[in-house]
Amino acid sequence: MLDLKADNQNVDVLMMDIGRKARAAARPLAIASTAQKNRALQAMAEAIVAAQAVILTANRLDLDNAAKAGLIASQIDRLTLNEERIAAMAEGIRMVAELDDPVGAVIAAWDRPNGLQIERVRTPLGVIGVIYESRPNVTADAGALCLKAGNAVILRGGTDSVHSSRAIHACLLQGLEVAGITDYAIQLVPVTDRSAVGSMLTGLDGTIDVIVPRGGKSLVARVQAEARVPVFAHLEGLCHVYVDASADLDMALKLVVNSKMRRTGICGAAETLLIDKAAVATHLKPLVEALSAAGCEIRGSSAALKAVPGLKLATEEDWRTEYLDAIIAVTIVDGIAGAIDHIGRYSSNHTEAVIAEDAAVVERFFAEIDSAILLHNASTQFADGGEFGMGGEIGIATGKMHARGPVGVEQLTSFKYRVRGTGQVRA
Amino acid sequence: MLDLKADNQNVDVLMMDIGRKARAAARPLAIASTAQKNRALQAMAEAIVAAQAVILTANRLDLDNAAKAGLIASQIDRLTLNEERIAAMAEGIRMVAELDDPVGAVIAAWDRPNGLQIERVRTPLGVIGVIYESRPNVTADAGALCLKAGNAVILRGGTDSVHSSRAIHACLLQGLEVAGITDYAIQLVPVTDRSAVGSMLTGLDGTIDVIVPRGGKSLVARVQAEARVPVFAHLEGLCHVYVDASADLDMALKLVVNSKMRRTGICGAAETLLIDKAAVATHLKPLVEALSAAGCEIRGSSAALKAVPGLKLATEEDWRTEYLDAIIAVTIVDGIAGAIDHIGRYSSNHTEAVIAEDAAVVERFFAEIDSAILLHNASTQFADGGEFGMGGEIGIATGKMHARGPVGVEQLTSFKYRVRGTGQVRA
Repeated sequence: MLDLKADNQNVDVLMMDIGRKARAAARPLAIASTAQKNRALQAMAEAIVAAQAVILTANRLDLDNAAKAGLIASQIDRLTLNEERIAAMAEGIRMVAELDDPVGAVIAAWDRPNGLQIERVRTPLGVIGVIYESRPNVTADAGALCLKAGNAVILRGGTDSVHSSRAIHACLLQGLEVAGITDYAIQLVPVTDRSAVGSMLTGLDGTIDVIVPRGGKSLVARVQAEARVPVFAHLEGLCHVYVDASADLDMALKLVVNSKMRRTGICGAAETLLIDKAAVATHLKPLVEALSAAGCEIRGSSAALKAVPGLKLATEEDWRTEYLDAIIAVTIVDGIAGAIDHIGRYSSNHTEAVIAEDAAVVERFFAEIDSAILLHNASTQFADGGEFGMGGEIGIATGKMHARGPVGVEQLTSFKYRVRGTGQVRA
Repeated sequence: MLDLKADNQNVDVLMMDIGRKARAAARPLAIASTAQKNRALQAMAEAIVAAQAVILTANRLDLDNAAKAGLIASQIDRLTLNEERIAAMAEGIRMVAELDDPVGAVIAAWDRPNGLQIERVRTPLGVIGVIYESRPNVTADAGALCLKAGNAVILRGGTDSVHSSRAIHACLLQGLEVAGITDYAIQLVPVTDRSAVGSMLTGLDGTIDVIVPRGGKSLVARVQAEARVPVFAHLEGLCHVYVDASADLDMALKLVVNSKMRRTGICGAAETLLIDKAAVATHLKPLVEALSAAGCEIRGSSAALKAVPGLKLATEEDWRTEYLDAIIAVTIVDGIAGAIDHIGRYSSNHTEAVIAEDAAVVERFFAEIDSAILLHNASTQFADGGEFGMGGEIGIATGKMHARGPVGVEQLTSFKYRVRGTGQVRA
């Protein structure tokens, strides 16, 4: 594999070549059979299991470099592979093999009065560009999902995980070879230059159909600002939980603590708790105590502080902050209308939950809030493609175009119309 | 109404204000009832019928200006309104009222093993920007379709049709008023400055969700090159008809002539005819004669000329040209594989037709060609939302994201997930 650190012009030439190869690979991939794609995926999983020692050695190298570079603990954790994580990676690929093949599925079909039979059929998108940071497992996840949906993929992993990603990519190539699929179906950008990302964001002369960034907010913000092709992403998950006066208190305690504290660093973690003013006397104090007991810092509005003295005072900034940490902002709202207003003002349109027994409240929440995922009496941490039963996901999107919510294999497809006639002409 | 011809800065301020008002209107529109939207649409149709004389007077003014400006006949025709066209406009709005409301429709629903019930539900996109040229009826068509799908719309009509569009827009506003829907649901940009288009293409600070250009290739090319928001459009419809050796000759004659000659100026008109080399002896000469008899100029490849001497010789440029005129390019290909290659190289991915009785040929055509619309034994001129039974269309898209083929009310929506639980937390 190349280890080129070249000037920008050479990187551009290299990237354009990668784009052309991906586009050429997309045509045969679009008509590859389900059996052929699944054979490749199964072989990839086997290759990863067989190459465990090689992958761990490569990961050791990345970890040594990371220690020297002074990466923080959470970055090191994301970068670290072990036997369990490698086994999970292989298992993830096998699960993608077991998913239904979306390509060729008839999404809708109808006949016209003149006898024309119209079908809307799923097709691959073409070429997906995936730009990620330190998690080496994205190499396997994204490679497998894109292949299953019949797309060529260009993977641009982080510099920190370059050796791990290359070792995993080598296993993916083995799988492609076993199934007789071109190497160019899954390409890993061989250079670590930052300008390679810039090249990808231009779309590589029309060869990239969509970009999926996987990483922190600064990466996603750069991609959203600079990309000249569509992007599937969420900038942040500023998720709200609204506790209505009709909420069952025991359920609310369980759901709020899980929504916030199960894992605080994921996009589906709750960041703001909204309490119905009619529930202040009954629900607020127990909720605050349960969160505190679970190790959560609580920042309350002045109204919340009046009801539960001793809380830290929240500022305007708190309503706009995705903590990704054991901190929650709490305020009191005027029923469902107040909750809808607050969420309309501050939400990132990712995921919001309502805890209520009043069906009318739930219906208003579902109808009037336009976030990608709305939950009733369930934890916000279910915002995940696997939990939705989609098998895997390449990310979660908050845009309104094409893909929204978890982006699984189906969302990595487009469609076309097939029309069958018997000689019809238009009058 | 304003008649501002201001400096660019003032236009920017005006456009940002229009964007903010559209965004504010989008929230109540998203939850407007079907009955309310249909009441507005019916009232719009009535207002247009009642204002026929006013609209014709306004159109007379535009036509006088057009004559002075030296517009060509086809432009004048697109600009011209008469009683029949005004009645058709009103009828088009009534048809949109009769369409099913896409908003709130459950597209998919499934349950998870843990009891979560997941639904994917249609939602409006938000704010649509429509940029068009001389056809004043786009004002009514686009306004009605966007309203039905629960979207606010910003209409930017052509300078040539400004008075006609204003007269029609006034009728749309009457309809909104009757139904108690805010005026800002359908805004017509009141200035004719070109910089207003540039402002819209920036997305007006995130207030425009998608742009739909309706007009000639230069308008669409500008929008596609400069837009910072998604665009639903096709740059051109370079449509192919492939006649296989298995084609029924009578059917082929009828379909090829209709595909090319019914209306030569629309995007679904055929531009290139591909003849299977095994059909040259039987099909080529009758097809050329039928096209000639219908008044079509034929430009043939050297192989075609060998079989039918006297044709004009086609150049490389002809395979890349959307004539939009009574001209067709003809070449001979090596069966379905050759047809797929030619279309892969030259198609604009809009619409292609295969004429064949051999089912295997049809299946390869349907599987391997990735254009928005593929037809078997039917005229390419069926590439139209109305002909697809979608009621109306705001345009035809060749992009792979979100909307592809005819863009009707359903394609003007997004979706969200509604998840119903009974207290589930994530382990």
